[in-house]
Amino acid sequence: MVGAGSAVVNTYPLASYTFGTKEPKMEKDTSVADRLARMKVNYMKEGMRTSVEAILLVQEHNHPHILLLQIGNTFCKLPGGRLKPGENVESALSISLFGRFCVSYFSHAYVTEIEGLKRKLTSKLGANSPGLVPDWQIGECVAILWRPNFETTMYPYCPPHITKPKECKKLFLVHLSEREYFAVPKNLKLLAVPLFELYDNVQRYGPVISTIPQQLSRFQFNMITTN
Amino acid sequence: MVGAGSAVVNTYPLASYTFGTKEPKMEKDTSVADRLARMKVNYMKEGMRTSVEAILLVQEHNHPHILLLQIGNTFCKLPGGRLKPGENVESALSISLFGRFCVSYFSHAYVTEIEGLKRKLTSKLGANSPGLVPDWQIGECVAILWRPNFETTMYPYCPPHITKPKECKKLFLVHLSEREYFAVPKNLKLLAVPLFELYDNVQRYGPVISTIPQQLSRFQFNMITTN
Repeated sequence: MVGAGSAVVNTYPLASYTFGTKEPKMEKDTSVADRLARMKVNYMKEGMRTSVEAILLVQEHNHPHILLLQIGNTFCKLPGGRLKPGENVESALSISLFGRFCVSYFSHAYVTEIEGLKRKLTSKLGANSPGLVPDWQIGECVAILWRPNFETTMYPYCPPHITKPKECKKLFLVHLSEREYFAVPKNLKLLAVPLFELYDNVQRYGPVISTIPQQLSRFQFNMITTN
Repeated sequence: MVGAGSAVVNTYPLASYTFGTKEPKMEKDTSVADRLARMKVNYMKEGMRTSVEAILLVQEHNHPHILLLQIGNTFCKLPGGRLKPGENVESALSISLFGRFCVSYFSHAYVTEIEGLKRKLTSKLGANSPGLVPDWQIGECVAILWRPNFETTMYPYCPPHITKPKECKKLFLVHLSEREYFAVPKNLKLLAVPLFELYDNVQRYGPVISTIPQQLSRFQFNMITTN
């Protein structure tokens, strides 16, 4: 366990990254009600929804900032999204039963989540030219959230007596290299928001993003200054 | 990195633990103003205060509960406390300079924090008879909080432009065995509070304890039922 308390994350200046644009990525739903209705339909077909989101860190003025995608004038979200049925735990398990290697339930599920998050990040922020897409380094899982019902509320635990949660969402730290090129869909804005702006700001960022500073507090940030 | 997302914590039923009492442990200060004044005096003598607190987990009704010490009728705190000057980073470093082994700054500081937390746990919850004191298994650091000024507010990051924070507090998960004996000071009550009661309940538990559910969300709880 020695050393477990001092995970170090390198963060590079926002100015060392390059931002371009690409074709719009439209939201699938135009309202919260539509979104919850689509969730219900998918649940009937595929069971519990599994989603993965990324915390991408940069630094400015020696303070960590998080990259958020802004839709319209107010709503912000982390890059990521829903895993395909082929990327979830159940599929991974059935593959492992017929595969050549005996893999543990959790490590296999973890690998498929990682691959799924890489796919989502490339879809949301990767250039159309594969050579320019970042080599996404998916790091620590920092939070897991549960949706007990077809409602907007999610909890950082599966509430007691809920045997069939409707969604499980995992947040992962993604370790960026010193230089990257991000292609931002034209209908979205990519913002670098400081931790002190997110903290205790549930009104503006919602209950998940506003508690990211707490989730990251155990990390030691190595703020690298480049020229 | 594979597996980093699925840390497993065994939790045992509250009923498998035994609780006794011991002599009172009085608070050093009778008011918040006294506490901040004492903090200032200690800062002048010893520099930044370092404190460590423990998250002790049990389970009831298949849901994780945290052990909190209640003082009077309302105020709750985690077991733990201030490290002695001999347990902080600076002392550890000066020892290592003259010691036989070359140890890294962080791993050495970490070891002294762990020993300091064990000492605090024994003082707060250990029996007077050493053979009955739990063999405290200090696990993952789950949060680090900073006090920028001699005020009650702490943040999950060191705010920008603060070069001399007044306190750094670390929260560690402590892995309990299946059976333990806790001796609770007579002036305190030991409560097992479910995560769902802490969540989003800043009014009752304050900003640190009320966000413990988020800090723990990445762990998978293995709820063990014993007879």
